Amino acid sequence: MTPAQSTHVDAAQPPGAFADRLAEAVARRRTAVLVGLDPRFDQLPPATVRGVDPACPAARAEAYRTFCREIIDVVAPLVAAVKPQMAFFEELGPAGMTALADVIAYARQRELLVILDGKRNDIGSTAAAYAGAYLGAGPLSPWGADALTVSPYLGADSLEPFVDVAQERGAGVFVLVKTSNPGGGQFQDLPTPDRPLYRRVAALVHELAMRRPGAGGYGCVGAVVGATYPEQLAELRAAMPASWLLVPGYGAQGAGAKDVAAAFDANGLGAIVNSSRAILFAHARKEFAGRFAADQWQLAVDAATREMISELAAETPTARLGRLDSR
Amino acid sequence: MTPAQSTHVDAAQPPGAFADRLAEAVARRRTAVLVGLDPRFDQLPPATVRGVDPACPAARAEAYRTFCREIIDVVAPLVAAVKPQMAFFEELGPAGMTALADVIAYARQRELLVILDGKRNDIGSTAAAYAGAYLGAGPLSPWGADALTVSPYLGADSLEPFVDVAQERGAGVFVLVKTSNPGGGQFQDLPTPDRPLYRRVAALVHELAMRRPGAGGYGCVGAVVGATYPEQLAELRAAMPASWLLVPGYGAQGAGAKDVAAAFDANGLGAIVNSSRAILFAHARKEFAGRFAADQWQLAVDAATREMISELAAETPTARLGRLDSR
Repeated sequence: MTPAQSTHVDAAQPPGAFADRLAEAVARRRTAVLVGLDPRFDQLPPATVRGVDPACPAARAEAYRTFCREIIDVVAPLVAAVKPQMAFFEELGPAGMTALADVIAYARQRELLVILDGKRNDIGSTAAAYAGAYLGAGPLSPWGADALTVSPYLGADSLEPFVDVAQERGAGVFVLVKTSNPGGGQFQDLPTPDRPLYRRVAALVHELAMRRPGAGGYGCVGAVVGATYPEQLAELRAAMPASWLLVPGYGAQGAGAKDVAAAFDANGLGAIVNSSRAILFAHARKEFAGRFAADQWQLAVDAATREMISELAAETPTARLGRLDSR
Repeated sequence: MTPAQSTHVDAAQPPGAFADRLAEAVARRRTAVLVGLDPRFDQLPPATVRGVDPACPAARAEAYRTFCREIIDVVAPLVAAVKPQMAFFEELGPAGMTALADVIAYARQRELLVILDGKRNDIGSTAAAYAGAYLGAGPLSPWGADALTVSPYLGADSLEPFVDVAQERGAGVFVLVKTSNPGGGQFQDLPTPDRPLYRRVAALVHELAMRRPGAGGYGCVGAVVGATYPEQLAELRAAMPASWLLVPGYGAQGAGAKDVAAAFDANGLGAIVNSSRAILFAHARKEFAGRFAADQWQLAVDAATREMISELAAETPTARLGRLDSR
């Protein structure tokens, strides 16, 4: 692996554009699987929570840290990136935040890109503080993530500070456009004079992404588009040709590989597909029941990750990607 | 002061409804001034940052903690509530989060209500994790805030988990409806078939607030409505009669007391008006230049807070409120 292909950020050298680093990482692993790190206490493998007092935030935080590191150990050789869900760490107070910082650092140490799912948003200079907090791998920011999810209700001037910092630090942002929850359409699908609201948000994302696209044609501004609306996925792929799509809703939320195929470009790039519960808590899935002993939950995680990689490979050309030269 | 009037939460006894506790606190102080805690490093009083290395998150976090405690010491006898802006603490990594937890605890110890400005949002069970993290004063949640700001783009099913937890724990949520930033209207003002988007969000807020209004007629779901749009403030006061309005944009962002008068009900309740920079960094305001020595910055904060209290008193009946009995 040449240095240019590495997702690792050298403190002495600014990283390449996020979109290019993501493309390289996806091409290297030949899959667009994104593993969501959502440590839900009640669903952790019994071996992980044995003796942990659920009422003690510090003990839970330590269990989350250990669990996420063990997940990372399994998936680091298989996928390009992980997506820690901040809510589950924030739920534990300051101890949870310290665990989150450790999990981010460990994922990067294992050469995974880290997309933090925090859905942050605020006006002008406050948005800049959030951007400075999270965007920028390794030493470039205190949390050290490669990208952050952000919410668009406050308009373009609330997103621009994130874009500016992302551009400067080789980081990325994923703007919520069409979410995967049942009620996502309540506001997002509302007709406005010429198109539904989510298409207006998509137009803004495209404009921001086009300001300085990376070598591979994608900019630092991506979009979150739920897999649970396949027609809109195709429509939004076309509407935001310079944006990576982060696609939640696979697996536990009901969508399959055929549903997400439209999110990809002709090379099998341009989209990453998140799965959290179906991978993290694979030990509890009935398909795997009896296949692994209780202390072999990491084998179940490995099997579930490989299963999703195969499913996506059957429907997208990502698996046939070679090394990305000259990007 | 009877126990029922106190903003303090006894671990052994669930607190009263947030809306009623807020009304009591506003009536007790006879002002709707809300002090925003936005520690911006470059604007802190020189005495606070002397010798602090800006590149060291732990040192900055300690300076923020000290500064916020000193602000709280000044404003606790004067106002009902403070609003820490999470972004500025998150900007410092885990050390900042620990400082935030301390600042929240100290504000509550000084009998201030704490409205956390985090603009959180996510789908279903993840929203529930955020709600569990932040909502519930004192021992009821790890962060221990009385209320949290939340963002509505994901629809009703993303807000309901916050409302459920708020209701259960005597806490509150403030949903972003019409924000104070210049670009706030880009999506919020878009016409939808029968009304602009922000009125749709307001209708949802009203519906959620009406599910179980407190004794004073207000529910646990409030709304953020910027002072920079006075006509819309009156319109939204009427559209959400059961919701407290959190009104940003006063002072540094350009709105005055006349602009916010329409946010209040006939008793001078129903709205709290935030000021951050004009109070926190009063030492640097030219009106106060020469009045206070450099180490007397707390006197400038006191003067600025009293000035805003007087301004609001001239335009709203809040100052004439007596003790709220039988609520």
